[in-house]
Amino acid sequence: MANLAPTREGDVTLEGAFRLENGAELRSPTIHYAVYGELNPRCDNAVLVCHALSGSARVPDWWPQLFPGVLDTARYCVIGANVIGSCYGSTGPLSPDPATGEPYGGGFPLVSIRDMVRAQALVLDRLGVPRLHSVIGGSIGGMQALQWAVDYPDRVERAIAIGAAPLSAMGLALSHVQRQAIRLDPAWRAGRYGPDDPPVAGLALARAIAMCSYKSAELFRRRFARRPDRSGEDPCCSLAERFDIAGYLDHQGEKFIARFDANSYLVLSKAMDTFDLARGYDSESDALRRIRARVLLIGISSDWLFPPQEVRELAHRIRTAGAPCEYTELKSSHGHDGFLADADLLAPFLTAAIWRPTVSAVPRPHLAPAASL
Amino acid sequence: MANLAPTREGDVTLEGAFRLENGAELRSPTIHYAVYGELNPRCDNAVLVCHALSGSARVPDWWPQLFPGVLDTARYCVIGANVIGSCYGSTGPLSPDPATGEPYGGGFPLVSIRDMVRAQALVLDRLGVPRLHSVIGGSIGGMQALQWAVDYPDRVERAIAIGAAPLSAMGLALSHVQRQAIRLDPAWRAGRYGPDDPPVAGLALARAIAMCSYKSAELFRRRFARRPDRSGEDPCCSLAERFDIAGYLDHQGEKFIARFDANSYLVLSKAMDTFDLARGYDSESDALRRIRARVLLIGISSDWLFPPQEVRELAHRIRTAGAPCEYTELKSSHGHDGFLADADLLAPFLTAAIWRPTVSAVPRPHLAPAASL
Repeated sequence: MANLAPTREGDVTLEGAFRLENGAELRSPTIHYAVYGELNPRCDNAVLVCHALSGSARVPDWWPQLFPGVLDTARYCVIGANVIGSCYGSTGPLSPDPATGEPYGGGFPLVSIRDMVRAQALVLDRLGVPRLHSVIGGSIGGMQALQWAVDYPDRVERAIAIGAAPLSAMGLALSHVQRQAIRLDPAWRAGRYGPDDPPVAGLALARAIAMCSYKSAELFRRRFARRPDRSGEDPCCSLAERFDIAGYLDHQGEKFIARFDANSYLVLSKAMDTFDLARGYDSESDALRRIRARVLLIGISSDWLFPPQEVRELAHRIRTAGAPCEYTELKSSHGHDGFLADADLLAPFLTAAIWRPTVSAVPRPHLAPAASL
Repeated sequence: MANLAPTREGDVTLEGAFRLENGAELRSPTIHYAVYGELNPRCDNAVLVCHALSGSARVPDWWPQLFPGVLDTARYCVIGANVIGSCYGSTGPLSPDPATGEPYGGGFPLVSIRDMVRAQALVLDRLGVPRLHSVIGGSIGGMQALQWAVDYPDRVERAIAIGAAPLSAMGLALSHVQRQAIRLDPAWRAGRYGPDDPPVAGLALARAIAMCSYKSAELFRRRFARRPDRSGEDPCCSLAERFDIAGYLDHQGEKFIARFDANSYLVLSKAMDTFDLARGYDSESDALRRIRARVLLIGISSDWLFPPQEVRELAHRIRTAGAPCEYTELKSSHGHDGFLADADLLAPFLTAAIWRPTVSAVPRPHLAPAASL
């Protein structure tokens, strides 16, 4: 269903100064959105789907396996909104800064997950969507789903986050070296590159490093082992010749530079790093106590960027704070990328979580994986 | 004992053409060596210690914890030899190419672990060392120890390799992105940089990426967590400000560029990738069948670059081939770096392995960790 066309698609301008968590302001940013299906008269069928780092408002483009089985547009009004800082239609580093008329470029401020979610809430106001039947996302999209549950407890009935938790030190490390790769590219020019000379080599390397963290050692071993590059290179012959895994990483980098902006990458990667539900509240448990949505956290068995253990621990903290939260685990060898690559396996979990009622206000005990969902 | 002075230190020139595995030739390369202690009259107390990627012939400089407890120079003649391709005294990319008088630079050929070991064997011939009581190494040094046992079965009585096995696809991936970081630096100039303008930013980033693979997520979590950089930066404030782990990685990179050459890094990193005991023989088991040394493989519990499971599997393959090989595991949270950072904990394993007799030709069953060694 990748070709599912939006019922509505457009831009919402948030007039005036949009103040970010770090104190910077964006003047009248626009948010690109796409809607699939119709809001029902009771306004209780809206499902917001939050995209990951390189996704867009067009949910079926990147999560096609969920249509129509999980996200049945005859039943739900599925909404996607491109995050601030991205390069898929919302205001980001490629957009003109109203103060200068030139693109923000490297001058684009650091945004937070909370900023992204607040912008989405304002967009939903404008679209006449008072509350969300569900908010769903994986990775940085899952962070947004959780932030929604904390910041807008009265507007969210179900929050489902896959492969999302505050990044551990290793995750922060891997993010940092990716951003350093972009900065190392002489074409980056502190973010002031023109449209004809972007830092593609740095961005490609950032993506290659990221792919190592998105996939799993097991998958790489099975798929590439120690085979030489499939184009016929002999890695034992010269420095330049590659193993197959290296050819794969380079190819992933080359594909990525055609569809993403380096400054956007810096902004969104750092936003992911800074995700911390405690910020703006007295403590994480104070934040978690606000949640009234029914929360489902899904860890991915082979995810080493957001290890399932850390997702499970977050679920435990949410329950300890008194909010209803379940944890389950997706068995996938694709690592963090499992929520996209194995979306078929993910679908039954999501269907069960979206379709079930939300009446239970009492925290439920930790459920065993899979079968009970 | 870091200040232990060598009994002898010098260079051996391997006169004539030294033909490498990939077919290239080096003209009269020199190998820098250092000896601690004296060869006894029976010539049966020589211990060759093979250094890792950024080490040198001066073993006590980088493995001080092993002196004098494990490597007692009153008892053993401890020998270190800098590998071909390095920048610590042996012929490498910084050395003048006799054909031009200019440094080899990016024109230095790809060397293999087998090339390194053959050069060491020739050096030992010149030093009058007919056989090795033991050969020991960690990481790429462990690869050399194993290659010694395969290529020179009559010269090696004990081979001890820590955190060494053929790199898995994930390891090859992480090596590749490090090398790409060097190549991304505009100062790299395809390896033809001058001494005053080396690609320090690329080399620093390569080292930062490598540090992620050398250490463990657990260690990073305990040591850095999600704390802001200790110098007072606020990572939530701007793109440039860092978490503490990022400051640590940058610092490791900065320290490294003062002591290592980027072209050497490319050569040695790729040599590590290509380590494969099967090469030059009909199969890996044919190679392993040659071993007559008593072999000890040590995995490091938190090593994710050379996961202990893969070291254990290699030990199993060696035993299956009929060679005596034991496996044990070092409990360390330092990841791959544990063989250096936790050398105190490693020492008892090494002492037991070095001191024990070698009479057993019959493969012994897998030993439980620690106590039995």
